[in-house]
Amino acid sequence: MRIGYLGPPGTFTEMALLRLPEAEEADAVPCASVDVALGRVRAGELDAAVVAMENSVEGGVSATLDSLATGSSLHIVGEVLVPIRFVLAVRPGTTLEDIHAVATHSHAWAQVRGWMSEHLPEAVFMPALSNAAAAADLGGEGASSFQAAVCPQIAADRHGLVPLADDIGDIPDAVTRFVVAARPGRMPEPTGADKTTLVLFQRDDRPGGLLGLLEQFAARGINLTRLESRPTKASLGSYCFSIDLEGHVADERVGETLMGLHRICSEVRFVGSYPRADLRPAEIHPDHGDEAYVDARLWLELLRRP
Amino acid sequence: MRIGYLGPPGTFTEMALLRLPEAEEADAVPCASVDVALGRVRAGELDAAVVAMENSVEGGVSATLDSLATGSSLHIVGEVLVPIRFVLAVRPGTTLEDIHAVATHSHAWAQVRGWMSEHLPEAVFMPALSNAAAAADLGGEGASSFQAAVCPQIAADRHGLVPLADDIGDIPDAVTRFVVAARPGRMPEPTGADKTTLVLFQRDDRPGGLLGLLEQFAARGINLTRLESRPTKASLGSYCFSIDLEGHVADERVGETLMGLHRICSEVRFVGSYPRADLRPAEIHPDHGDEAYVDARLWLELLRRP
Amino acid sequence: MRIGYLGPPGTFTEMALLRLPEAEEADAVPCASVDVALGRVRAGELDAAVVAMENSVEGGVSATLDSLATGSSLHIVGEVLVPIRFVLAVRPGTTLEDIHAVATHSHAWAQVRGWMSEHLPEAVFMPALSNAAAAADLGGEGASSFQAAVCPQIAADRHGLVPLADDIGDIPDAVTRFVVAARPGRMPEPTGADKTTLVLFQRDDRPGGLLGLLEQFAARGINLTRLESRPTKASLGSYCFSIDLEGHVADERVGETLMGLHRICSEVRFVGSYPRADLRPAEIHPDHGDEAYVDARLWLELLRRP
Amino acid sequence: MRIGYLGPPGTFTEMALLRLPEAEEADAVPCASVDVALGRVRAGELDAAVVAMENSVEGGVSATLDSLATGSSLHIVGEVLVPIRFVLAVRPGTTLEDIHAVATHSHAWAQVRGWMSEHLPEAVFMPALSNAAAAADLGGEGASSFQAAVCPQIAADRHGLVPLADDIGDIPDAVTRFVVAARPGRMPEPTGADKTTLVLFQRDDRPGGLLGLLEQFAARGINLTRLESRPTKASLGSYCFSIDLEGHVADERVGETLMGLHRICSEVRFVGSYPRADLRPAEIHPDHGDEAYVDARLWLELLRRP
Repeated sequence: MRIGYLGPPGTFTEMALLRLPEAEEADAVPCASVDVALGRVRAGELDAAVVAMENSVEGGVSATLDSLATGSSLHIVGEVLVPIRFVLAVRPGTTLEDIHAVATHSHAWAQVRGWMSEHLPEAVFMPALSNAAAAADLGGEGASSFQAAVCPQIAADRHGLVPLADDIGDIPDAVTRFVVAARPGRMPEPTGADKTTLVLFQRDDRPGGLLGLLEQFAARGINLTRLESRPTKASLGSYCFSIDLEGHVADERVGETLMGLHRICSEVRFVGSYPRADLRPAEIHPDHGDEAYVDARLWLELLRRP
Repeated sequence: MRIGYLGPPGTFTEMALLRLPEAEEADAVPCASVDVALGRVRAGELDAAVVAMENSVEGGVSATLDSLATGSSLHIVGEVLVPIRFVLAVRPGTTLEDIHAVATHSHAWAQVRGWMSEHLPEAVFMPALSNAAAAADLGGEGASSFQAAVCPQIAADRHGLVPLADDIGDIPDAVTRFVVAARPGRMPEPTGADKTTLVLFQRDDRPGGLLGLLEQFAARGINLTRLESRPTKASLGSYCFSIDLEGHVADERVGETLMGLHRICSEVRFVGSYPRADLRPAEIHPDHGDEAYVDARLWLELLRRP
Repeated sequence: MRIGYLGPPGTFTEMALLRLPEAEEADAVPCASVDVALGRVRAGELDAAVVAMENSVEGGVSATLDSLATGSSLHIVGEVLVPIRFVLAVRPGTTLEDIHAVATHSHAWAQVRGWMSEHLPEAVFMPALSNAAAAADLGGEGASSFQAAVCPQIAADRHGLVPLADDIGDIPDAVTRFVVAARPGRMPEPTGADKTTLVLFQRDDRPGGLLGLLEQFAARGINLTRLESRPTKASLGSYCFSIDLEGHVADERVGETLMGLHRICSEVRFVGSYPRADLRPAEIHPDHGDEAYVDARLWLELLRRP
Repeated sequence: MRIGYLGPPGTFTEMALLRLPEAEEADAVPCASVDVALGRVRAGELDAAVVAMENSVEGGVSATLDSLATGSSLHIVGEVLVPIRFVLAVRPGTTLEDIHAVATHSHAWAQVRGWMSEHLPEAVFMPALSNAAAAADLGGEGASSFQAAVCPQIAADRHGLVPLADDIGDIPDAVTRFVVAARPGRMPEPTGADKTTLVLFQRDDRPGGLLGLLEQFAARGINLTRLESRPTKASLGSYCFSIDLEGHVADERVGETLMGLHRICSEVRFVGSYPRADLRPAEIHPDHGDEAYVDARLWLELLRRP
């Protein structure tokens, strides 16, 4: 089994991959970007890819949301939560006074600005393709235009760097949620603690129409755990909605909701049902349990019987 | 075939019965009250009964609504609209000056109060079991404690009375809607211009809970043509709702709505699907047509297929 | 002070009137009907009238609802709850075997049908203008065409009758709610346990439009304690809604709701704010308390200040 | 007057600034980032700043949304729409074959990936702080690690570069919306074609609670033109909502909506009312016009008057 991730080795995405039960047996394949990783899954070159979905500080990861919302269908089959902890990695011997430029991914930079303005107010930010790439570059043979990288400890270790400061993120307890995406075909069984991911395209694309979509969920007692608007790229103000809900497509109330959305949306893209990383079971009011649906269906069949 | 109605002969209910296509072949059986008529249908002594459901001036007919909402199940299989026109019926030779007391059913009295206060301000109202009973009493052999009856022309004719004044109702174009009720078993086919009657009992019986019920209809684009609250007789402020909607239980959107109500109500009583008297076809948005439901179901089945 | 009620003496309405604090000082004036009583208040001949509003078994009292919904404005200023208990009243010496006909108001008859079919299955029902009128007639000097009256004990006492059977209602704990109506001008102060009565006329008169009205209440956390549709008499299926809500027009959330309804209805008729008979205080979520409204208004004023 | 923008000169943000009526008289001050620009406005060093708010392809600009949602209050006082058109800028004499690495901002790179994979499939992406910075770097004196920059024509011109290809964006008609932010104090007058920007924080922070917020807008007939969820940074799944609506805080319906939101949210941050760039007037149903609000208020005052 071959699983792609955002490389080079040492990224948070690799840390997420390593937490998967499948990781021991699988071949971890670094990819240059989220697009490349998901493209290789679509092309059949990889069995799955681990990609970042949302971060507690920076929000949704646009590249992932947009790639899952377009192109040939991929399904999420699992999720992993990874605590985010940054170090300031340097070549051995470097001191704070030596640092004039710091490289990292722009998302990471956004999360350490407070620390930087306090400890390295004069340092210039050099954007990098990934945190691990910044570490790899700094740890490499040649000269480097910067003296420090912001990255996870694991990336520092891999590239012969040492942490000059640890846990330098501005927000404590930052977490990133990663998902495992695969070609449709092996849907995880319902566990009672599941999520389902959807992308909804409205006929009438004004955000106001969102009310009608949300009522479909509310009418069946379904909680949403994430909702993000994304441009459909058609015109300014034209949005689709990327949504995670509590429950599995095999649940009656989720199936009814999907059918209701299918009737009123121009497109409903199903992006998979999968077990929650936090194992928290869905709280279901008896009105919305499977039994209530089965009862109602039997009752209707009796009414309609000639 | 034996069809009951509120007698004696000459009532508006008999007029409604005579408009039924089945009337020619059927045996019309006068009954002492709505309760008696529906009770004899339940007992199998009659095949059906014609009963008043609502009047454009006086509103819902409590006896009919309550009898259909309780006891063993009856289904409405048809409806008839009858224009309501009252005459002031007297024995031949009687003049306005002779009239000191007027008998009629209290509902009829309520509809002619304006005329009475103008033309017979001193006349006393004598309540009768039905308009036709008042006419029969006045037209009978013995002495009578009143000199005029408010009734339809047909009742005057039957009992040897003459109209001293015609069309004396205060509201022009008053109409009463009658329904034909039978034991479950012969549901009329959908025609595209149908109604369905329901009685809804809430778990939480506050009128505020009505909002949740109405949302079930709105979510499927279903119009209501009548909604009335009726006491459940349990305590003051405990209500059920008697409802007519546009559509047939065989319609997908009506079936879905019934299932939705079944999940959230303590009881949903189905009181029949039947063709509308006015033949006005339901206007259905494509989101709520049968095709949209079938499409959504097939789509979901494909998603769920392993 | 002169207060009208549905006479003759001995009606449940008189019992309601006697429970008013004002009763001792006031002059109780029997009236022939609800319409007459309210008409005399409108005309200034009476200061107020006590009329039945709803009964736990028979539902809303159409004559009261319709009279309050039309004509010149009246305001409810108080309410009274009266337990309903019927006796079978006869002349002294009468036995069950002697009874061939029973007189009472049709609403009373509807509430004792079970007892009658068990104990007097052959007795004929004779409709009367009121229960007390039936008792007065039976207790009068002349011959009577019936041998028993269904009425409250008080009516039997007044007219020299004795109870052959007591508490003969089919539903235990039946209650009727009476209201005191007066010309606008002396609104009761808010007590924290109040009701407000409204009549709502929709622009678009389909019952489906009711959803939009109910949302106005739900959005401000307002409970309804009664909701009834009544025909506007314009055409079959044209309804207005008679509503009681928890709260006083002086409450912020009630005022906001009234303004919201005023914007979307063709007419909102205010029929008074008054203390609840059961003294149960309104439960108000902090989001909907007066303080939340005042805070929000001050905040908006600051935003708008140039 | 001093107006900040994301520098260096040659950015789309500078193009937006130049379209402002105030631009001729004002001093345009390049800033290193959105955060720096808005921070200098907050500190009183600048009178206003022009910042990107959303792009039709890439969606909301997180740095702007987050900076406006936190810290001391800023108000938007205007908006500008700028069509986005990229060129591939090179030093004179460079040909496609010479290009091995391309620098630009990551947002720009996301919008030209299609063109790049077709024409320069082997080229490496070098992230830059801005498109204009990439052009400045390439046009500078020293050696450069890349041979082309993706930037607007204006940036190429400023830095002595020539376009090797024009209009290389994957999505035609891409547009970015910029806003002018200033310290509170000079609110633009209502024009009838206005927008208002808000940030809403929920008490209960589940996305499902969004339904209750949207109902506040729907109940007053207010259209939303943008809705985005942003993490509050407290924990994964804790969101606030950044919203643009049609209308001005001086409009009655907008004021009512703001008060309604204030009652149910833990915080409502007002981020300004300002004229729309497209001058499209709001369509207002008469139920929601200023007149309907004023009428309702007068009516309520009369009801409440003692």
